[in-house]
Amino acid sequence: MWPNSKLLDLIGTKLPIIQAPMAGASGSAMAIAVSEAGGLGSLPCAMLGSNKVESEIALIRQCTDKPINLNFFCHTPAEPDPTRDTAWMESLKEYYAEFGLDTPAQTPASGRAPFDTAMCEMIERLKPEVVSFHFGLPDPSLLERVKACGSVILSSATTVEEALWLEANGCDAIIAQGNEAGGHRGMFLTNNIESQPGTFALVPQVVDAVKLPVIAAGGIADGRGIAAALALGAAGVQLGTAYLFTPESLISDLHRKALLNAKDSSTALTNLFSGKPARSIFNRIMREAGPMSDQTPGFPTAGRALAPLKTKAEENGAADFSSLWAGQAVGLGHETSSRELTQQLALDAEKCLRNLGSSN
Amino acid sequence: MWPNSKLLDLIGTKLPIIQAPMAGASGSAMAIAVSEAGGLGSLPCAMLGSNKVESEIALIRQCTDKPINLNFFCHTPAEPDPTRDTAWMESLKEYYAEFGLDTPAQTPASGRAPFDTAMCEMIERLKPEVVSFHFGLPDPSLLERVKACGSVILSSATTVEEALWLEANGCDAIIAQGNEAGGHRGMFLTNNIESQPGTFALVPQVVDAVKLPVIAAGGIADGRGIAAALALGAAGVQLGTAYLFTPESLISDLHRKALLNAKDSSTALTNLFSGKPARSIFNRIMREAGPMSDQTPGFPTAGRALAPLKTKAEENGAADFSSLWAGQAVGLGHETSSRELTQQLALDAEKCLRNLGSSN
Repeated sequence: MWPNSKLLDLIGTKLPIIQAPMAGASGSAMAIAVSEAGGLGSLPCAMLGSNKVESEIALIRQCTDKPINLNFFCHTPAEPDPTRDTAWMESLKEYYAEFGLDTPAQTPASGRAPFDTAMCEMIERLKPEVVSFHFGLPDPSLLERVKACGSVILSSATTVEEALWLEANGCDAIIAQGNEAGGHRGMFLTNNIESQPGTFALVPQVVDAVKLPVIAAGGIADGRGIAAALALGAAGVQLGTAYLFTPESLISDLHRKALLNAKDSSTALTNLFSGKPARSIFNRIMREAGPMSDQTPGFPTAGRALAPLKTKAEENGAADFSSLWAGQAVGLGHETSSRELTQQLALDAEKCLRNLGSSN
Repeated sequence: MWPNSKLLDLIGTKLPIIQAPMAGASGSAMAIAVSEAGGLGSLPCAMLGSNKVESEIALIRQCTDKPINLNFFCHTPAEPDPTRDTAWMESLKEYYAEFGLDTPAQTPASGRAPFDTAMCEMIERLKPEVVSFHFGLPDPSLLERVKACGSVILSSATTVEEALWLEANGCDAIIAQGNEAGGHRGMFLTNNIESQPGTFALVPQVVDAVKLPVIAAGGIADGRGIAAALALGAAGVQLGTAYLFTPESLISDLHRKALLNAKDSSTALTNLFSGKPARSIFNRIMREAGPMSDQTPGFPTAGRALAPLKTKAEENGAADFSSLWAGQAVGLGHETSSRELTQQLALDAEKCLRNLGSSN
């Protein structure tokens, strides 16, 4: 039924549709809904403690016997740099003054932890069908243990070079993440956002370079996009932003409101919220201090300095200091359930493919 | 034979393929080859004098009776700003010293002229089937005269907002130019490159917003890309970079060599060569002074200061100061003739569409 069964054969789903793991924005409910509808539901684990991951997985296993994806970060956390932290905080002091806040001596710790031995042991207990990584792959010894569980390994490439590296280092399928994508780029061999290709250019060049199945990500939000990704040679797609509009999304009301008002040109890449470039809807801090700054602390700590401002502004109903992750296809999103969205995406893609073929 | 005949009906070609007009890089030979092969050949007129346009058109009319597109810029040239010019030249003085050159008191004039009454009179004599504009549309009184000749009007939109403006102001079809595209963005309501959507996100959002046929541009270099653009709802495509690899392309040997060595992540947007953002293959001046700079003189004069350095470096076999226009799909390009490329694109796109449809 689908032009290319390489991904379906690999991950065992009915549909070539992966719900993007969105740390902080999705949990078990969304993963269950998507997997039950025939796609691959994903649980983002990078911001959860191990107890929470285990309870979420227990819930998922209760509600569905379909394949599931657990997602982890595998960044190398930046070395502590108090001088840089202080300078960054200093640059924000007028905002603190505006809210009548003292600049904090101690800022809250970042919740984003890289994949480690404890998480690996958890994988060995839980044996998820799919494990996906962001920012490259973990240490080879850990990766071997994950592969020994039978989990299919995915990771994101933002260039052909990264795709070739992932193929050479144990990945089973490559997510080709175009510049359009919301949230953090998975880039790990470069930090040059100026040269990150868009999905339209990236996917066919990755398809030509690697033997593994390629999953297109970035800018895809409806059946047309799925058909187009398959035309470019992808074996499947990963969508994030479209799922943020569902009731299973865990985003704030302010983030939801921003999504509903956003259009094609509302987003930009910014490193203000974490230290690594991620696509967010433009807001005050992005306009005034960025969207990219060469002064932010390293990933994942940069956002700590904004946290008290975010809290205070949100109390006043303003998302001026909040990360509002969204991709460039945000204007195509609409409110529906994760289950219905998955089903509709598949139906629309099939219809689009039929129409394209029938004219010839 | 094609999923959507709206563009074919409008411009009268057999194929929904437009060769992008590339000022300085293409002339009558490429336009003739593409139009004869069934696509729409384009003659970029922005850098030609009126005599040259007339002789090129005479040649085209001798060699083909198929539809042809004449392309013009309609930017508002920047006001003279000697202080800014001097500061920019000053920032380049070490490069001049490196080549043993004095910084020139007088720099050569830019060859890029906006559409004006004389050009309009020429259109009235030549009556091209299609006239396309870059950077918006000309003055309404001039546009009316062009439309009165029966010419179909095209212009580029880099956002949904620009597409709606073009539709409201007399365009007959919209070129949705994604961030991947080589050369100058057609942007005219914004200069914010940070928020320019990629082709994958832009095309369906423009298709949903306007009633006019939409032509996808940016990142398209083979049959898969054409099929994908049609899947996204486009009625046709415009390709530039793929045609730079042909013998009809007028680029330098150094530019050609750079194209053959370029890959998906080799390009970036830069304003160093003209004052407006355009996509070029990375070279020395882009790395050292950009790729974007807030110090360049306004369009179209910025490149004048680099001209003597470009000449000198090229004499030494280096493209260190040359604009190397290319889109992000440059890695898909290969050496073939403009005629064969056009025919192959159509065959591959049809095959791709058939394959997509037959699986359903």
